[in-house]
Amino acid sequence: MGNTFGRKFKITTFGESHGKAIGVTIDGCPAGLEIDEEFIQSELDRRKPGQSKITTQRKEGDKAEILSGVFEGRSTGTPIAIIIYNKDQKSRDYSHIAEKFRPSHADYTYESKYGIRDYRGGGRSSARETAARVAAGAIAKLMLKEIGIDVQAYVSQVGGLKLDKPYTELDISNAESNMVRCPDDNIANEMIALIDQTRKNQDTIGGVVTGVITGTPVGLGEPVFNRLHADLGKAMLSINAVKGFEYGSGFEGVKMLGSEHNDAFRKVDGVVTTDTNLSGGIQGGISNGQDIYFNVAFKPVATIMKDQDSIDKEGNPTTVSGKGRHDPCVVPRAVPIVEAMAALVIADFYLLNKSSKL
Amino acid sequence: MGNTFGRKFKITTFGESHGKAIGVTIDGCPAGLEIDEEFIQSELDRRKPGQSKITTQRKEGDKAEILSGVFEGRSTGTPIAIIIYNKDQKSRDYSHIAEKFRPSHADYTYESKYGIRDYRGGGRSSARETAARVAAGAIAKLMLKEIGIDVQAYVSQVGGLKLDKPYTELDISNAESNMVRCPDDNIANEMIALIDQTRKNQDTIGGVVTGVITGTPVGLGEPVFNRLHADLGKAMLSINAVKGFEYGSGFEGVKMLGSEHNDAFRKVDGVVTTDTNLSGGIQGGISNGQDIYFNVAFKPVATIMKDQDSIDKEGNPTTVSGKGRHDPCVVPRAVPIVEAMAALVIADFYLLNKSSKL
Amino acid sequence: MGNTFGRKFKITTFGESHGKAIGVTIDGCPAGLEIDEEFIQSELDRRKPGQSKITTQRKEGDKAEILSGVFEGRSTGTPIAIIIYNKDQKSRDYSHIAEKFRPSHADYTYESKYGIRDYRGGGRSSARETAARVAAGAIAKLMLKEIGIDVQAYVSQVGGLKLDKPYTELDISNAESNMVRCPDDNIANEMIALIDQTRKNQDTIGGVVTGVITGTPVGLGEPVFNRLHADLGKAMLSINAVKGFEYGSGFEGVKMLGSEHNDAFRKVDGVVTTDTNLSGGIQGGISNGQDIYFNVAFKPVATIMKDQDSIDKEGNPTTVSGKGRHDPCVVPRAVPIVEAMAALVIADFYLLNKSSKL
Amino acid sequence: MGNTFGRKFKITTFGESHGKAIGVTIDGCPAGLEIDEEFIQSELDRRKPGQSKITTQRKEGDKAEILSGVFEGRSTGTPIAIIIYNKDQKSRDYSHIAEKFRPSHADYTYESKYGIRDYRGGGRSSARETAARVAAGAIAKLMLKEIGIDVQAYVSQVGGLKLDKPYTELDISNAESNMVRCPDDNIANEMIALIDQTRKNQDTIGGVVTGVITGTPVGLGEPVFNRLHADLGKAMLSINAVKGFEYGSGFEGVKMLGSEHNDAFRKVDGVVTTDTNLSGGIQGGISNGQDIYFNVAFKPVATIMKDQDSIDKEGNPTTVSGKGRHDPCVVPRAVPIVEAMAALVIADFYLLNKSSKL
Repeated sequence: MGNTFGRKFKITTFGESHGKAIGVTIDGCPAGLEIDEEFIQSELDRRKPGQSKITTQRKEGDKAEILSGVFEGRSTGTPIAIIIYNKDQKSRDYSHIAEKFRPSHADYTYESKYGIRDYRGGGRSSARETAARVAAGAIAKLMLKEIGIDVQAYVSQVGGLKLDKPYTELDISNAESNMVRCPDDNIANEMIALIDQTRKNQDTIGGVVTGVITGTPVGLGEPVFNRLHADLGKAMLSINAVKGFEYGSGFEGVKMLGSEHNDAFRKVDGVVTTDTNLSGGIQGGISNGQDIYFNVAFKPVATIMKDQDSIDKEGNPTTVSGKGRHDPCVVPRAVPIVEAMAALVIADFYLLNKSSKL
Repeated sequence: MGNTFGRKFKITTFGESHGKAIGVTIDGCPAGLEIDEEFIQSELDRRKPGQSKITTQRKEGDKAEILSGVFEGRSTGTPIAIIIYNKDQKSRDYSHIAEKFRPSHADYTYESKYGIRDYRGGGRSSARETAARVAAGAIAKLMLKEIGIDVQAYVSQVGGLKLDKPYTELDISNAESNMVRCPDDNIANEMIALIDQTRKNQDTIGGVVTGVITGTPVGLGEPVFNRLHADLGKAMLSINAVKGFEYGSGFEGVKMLGSEHNDAFRKVDGVVTTDTNLSGGIQGGISNGQDIYFNVAFKPVATIMKDQDSIDKEGNPTTVSGKGRHDPCVVPRAVPIVEAMAALVIADFYLLNKSSKL
Repeated sequence: MGNTFGRKFKITTFGESHGKAIGVTIDGCPAGLEIDEEFIQSELDRRKPGQSKITTQRKEGDKAEILSGVFEGRSTGTPIAIIIYNKDQKSRDYSHIAEKFRPSHADYTYESKYGIRDYRGGGRSSARETAARVAAGAIAKLMLKEIGIDVQAYVSQVGGLKLDKPYTELDISNAESNMVRCPDDNIANEMIALIDQTRKNQDTIGGVVTGVITGTPVGLGEPVFNRLHADLGKAMLSINAVKGFEYGSGFEGVKMLGSEHNDAFRKVDGVVTTDTNLSGGIQGGISNGQDIYFNVAFKPVATIMKDQDSIDKEGNPTTVSGKGRHDPCVVPRAVPIVEAMAALVIADFYLLNKSSKL
Repeated sequence: MGNTFGRKFKITTFGESHGKAIGVTIDGCPAGLEIDEEFIQSELDRRKPGQSKITTQRKEGDKAEILSGVFEGRSTGTPIAIIIYNKDQKSRDYSHIAEKFRPSHADYTYESKYGIRDYRGGGRSSARETAARVAAGAIAKLMLKEIGIDVQAYVSQVGGLKLDKPYTELDISNAESNMVRCPDDNIANEMIALIDQTRKNQDTIGGVVTGVITGTPVGLGEPVFNRLHADLGKAMLSINAVKGFEYGSGFEGVKMLGSEHNDAFRKVDGVVTTDTNLSGGIQGGISNGQDIYFNVAFKPVATIMKDQDSIDKEGNPTTVSGKGRHDPCVVPRAVPIVEAMAALVIADFYLLNKSSKL
């Protein structure tokens, strides 16, 4: 029931991990946008499995095909449907999970809610679904680029290893230069080693992705409920394995005094700006033109290679162990997903804001 | 544009801080629910100003009046409108903020987005709007009570003072026994002293509210986008001054290994349960029947009594200082608001889930 | 559950016929619109009971009060709540219908659907609810006036008495000059006589309201489902007692050949126009800049003064007879309601269309 | 922007007439429904071109393929995506319409609204899109069948030839036995002759489709705006070429007196029924358990083989003439589309109604 996101730039996704295809329909993309298919594909490639030794070794082609809504290279204002066929589907044996509930997976809750579940590779609950989001997010990014808005993300923490510099002191574009997507090469190397070791231990580990949105005009966000950060938070929390979201000063901000936390306004060269930006670019739920930045917490991947105690569908004790090829840490591949969801939120609010004034 | 929340248990709020009235229309409350008006009022009383020395000393009656949707004490399935007249509106002088932008308030963003703003007391951006949510949440709570679901919240942190026990080791009901709404009396006293001192310093401070939902049946939540925790997070982030949301293991969980973090299933006395609950009662975006728990971070209140640098509408430097009576720390009064929003989310998902199976 | 209408210019109504108040919240009205309260009241006065001998003789003040969303005479972009208190509520005896189902009323269906019903004056199913729509529609009209769009309606049929001229041959503004709101005075007099006679016969009779929208820009409407005429039709069909809707050539158009029905394009003085307008100003679900015109069929009012056979709540045969003061024909008072709903639809599509192109 | 229909049984369609594919995603179909793919295909076959001499002679395979949401023959509660590839796409020459606006088509309005248009075969504005609705409607029908609800439609008028018997005197199932889908064979033959003659005259003609829904439980419909007939009307008006909708007594009902029009209640064998059914099975916007019946008016198809005056994109006078193979009358093929949209509306309200009572 909840497979649509957005109001004016609205996406609907479909597809299971091991079904015929996954895909997305975008309704509300303005007409006249140049659709760069290579860019869409490059975004999918950033998310695809098998990129490096610290991601799952599965090989999924993830070739996006546009079925509608684009004519002579431009959006037509009609729904843009994108399909990604599931190619690498050897008819694997899933009997080891068909009758069991994997710990901290969605097996038990889907089975209970729907009375039936496509157990192959997690079915609809698989993070494979996020490929559709990345494809849609790529189109949102193309639109935002026209307006001068840029959405970036990077890995800022893996397990206990934390990049303690604020984004303002980093060259975020450097994140793509290493396999963990952390812009600081030293920490990146430590993170890679930690993930690699965790993988060898047949275990998994969590991490944090930081997102930064620059170039946002003043006025995006629709209070009181659809505050910009509320929708942004929901977008992030809708990604598999996410356990937390904070923006601006976040959880650390609670320790501060108001006199420390308030961002003083100043007009510089005709432009209103703030001396500090603990607000994270959003005040009263509306963008104030400063950078928007936020953190997204990802739990350790639930599929581990070790044996774990669990129960089967009848409630009998049983043992579950991971098979196949899985990510030891989700954050490197989560970076483009975080960016995609952020781009979708900003694109939506940008279009919504067109009717704020008469 | 964003003044409606929920899909089946759907609320729409209206009203400015110093307008004639604030209020809410609830569309989708099932018919036949006994509406206990005293309970609604008691929830509003938990939120009202002037409760104690650590809240604002303003006196707002906040008397809720039901205008429709209830007949002979029961909901009729038609919209329930509740109005709260703004009684304590002396025609104060707001000229000190009419032409200025208060730091970290919504003055600048509202003015920019809409080209006009009701500057009296913050207008629509005032937290006064949350009284309407509390009234609606009270009705959601009445509905949830019929199903056996209980929603509670308490203050777990003020500034750097943190209650380090998990909720399972606390008697949450004790939270209402002290003015800061922290269930541990010792920490409560420290918190009260800290807030009181902050107030005397003409400053403000942040805090964290922890929410706990018990008795939730398995199956609530609508993936992939409307995951239970995604809507819950959005609900919390839509509350004034909130900077972050986490559930279950949250941001701390990123440091853990999968083998530590996974919640083993077990069937006890015919009921499926988990040995640990780092999932926070939600797996794959759907409730699993375990307790749902979460933290909400509130920044320090932006209105401080000290002078602050800012600009006026023309961009000229100016000085802003708080007047009137304001909260030195928002979390004690935020507790019923967090509960209200949580109750609204759960009520909505409960009704949505009625059509999951044929 | 279905008490909200519109997407960007969105209204939510509440209230029962004999409850404390009825009202509406408008979310999405652009900021900066001058709100002429006298105009809102004048629209309500066009709908109010007791206007003439051919309407119900009830006297309802229907005084609209704006509670929020307007500051210094202009809309602020926040929700505009309007309340109309139910003043003329003598504690009448409704026991004659509390236990009975009136034929062709909503008593039986509400009782069955909700298990409870406010039987006083029909409760929520009463056409009294439409006063809230007229108030909201007045604000939509104010917005449309700024853009140059005009919405008018008139009575074109009462019983078998039909005004057989197309709207293009009429001076629609003359409709307000007589009590039946038909722009042709001769037919108007016949209609008035027919309604008056029907009233004396303790009976009721149906009629048709014709609507005409001029000045609509090209481009309004959101195919494939939200075609302009589809939403317009839904808006009309959501009004009490409506049984049918047609636009442009309508039901008569089915008899025509394509070669007769097609509207040839022509460019005159730099403006694209059509020689004929059987399309009714809408092609492919999108306005083409020509006049939009449509007919709305209203059944005879169900409340008649004669005795009728029916059943009580237990299913026992009983007799029902109308009491009080009711309209013998609904169409004269339906004219402002049709206009209000049409204005709401056009305002909504106007705002939606702002993001069609990049 | 308007490519989604429904709230709980919600469909989103995509695709242009001559793009790669058209399709639909159904979100909200309850889990556990047996999905009969042959039935879906048989419904599409009822809509497909080239069925008979009175439909277009184009041959479109219209093979539906389910991509997701079905596992081991049953719906899983996740989105059901269905794709229909556009096979018969010879790279025809569309230069004759690329620069011209066909009269009473959507060329001009799409071009104006979006600034770009896929002119091949009408693009998104083509009735080809309705194949996706028929596929989705087939699944709605499968769900309704489980509940005992049956949706049927037939042709009741072609041009001036009208079947003057009410549906109650017809064997509707006989409609499928002739190529015009009129249950009365005598009138059917006249209709076929009229359409065939119109085709030979290189012209087109309009018609009426009547729909009948039986077995609906009491309680479907969500007043005040989402009355059952309001959504049903919108659904019908969203179909290409529709100009009008009426239900129950419809436009004829306006001539009646209330004393004639009211449907007396009666309890027969423990079941509440009505002596007459001028209400068309809906009272106060909610189903009352009686048959729901309605008429849908279709204009003559805009594409005719004769030359017509029009303008090109620059506004210069030009001549347009139909090429290829088109329907001389749309109603025979519209029957399954009307049924599909009706089934979608009823399925949606059935699911919505599950939470009306506590």
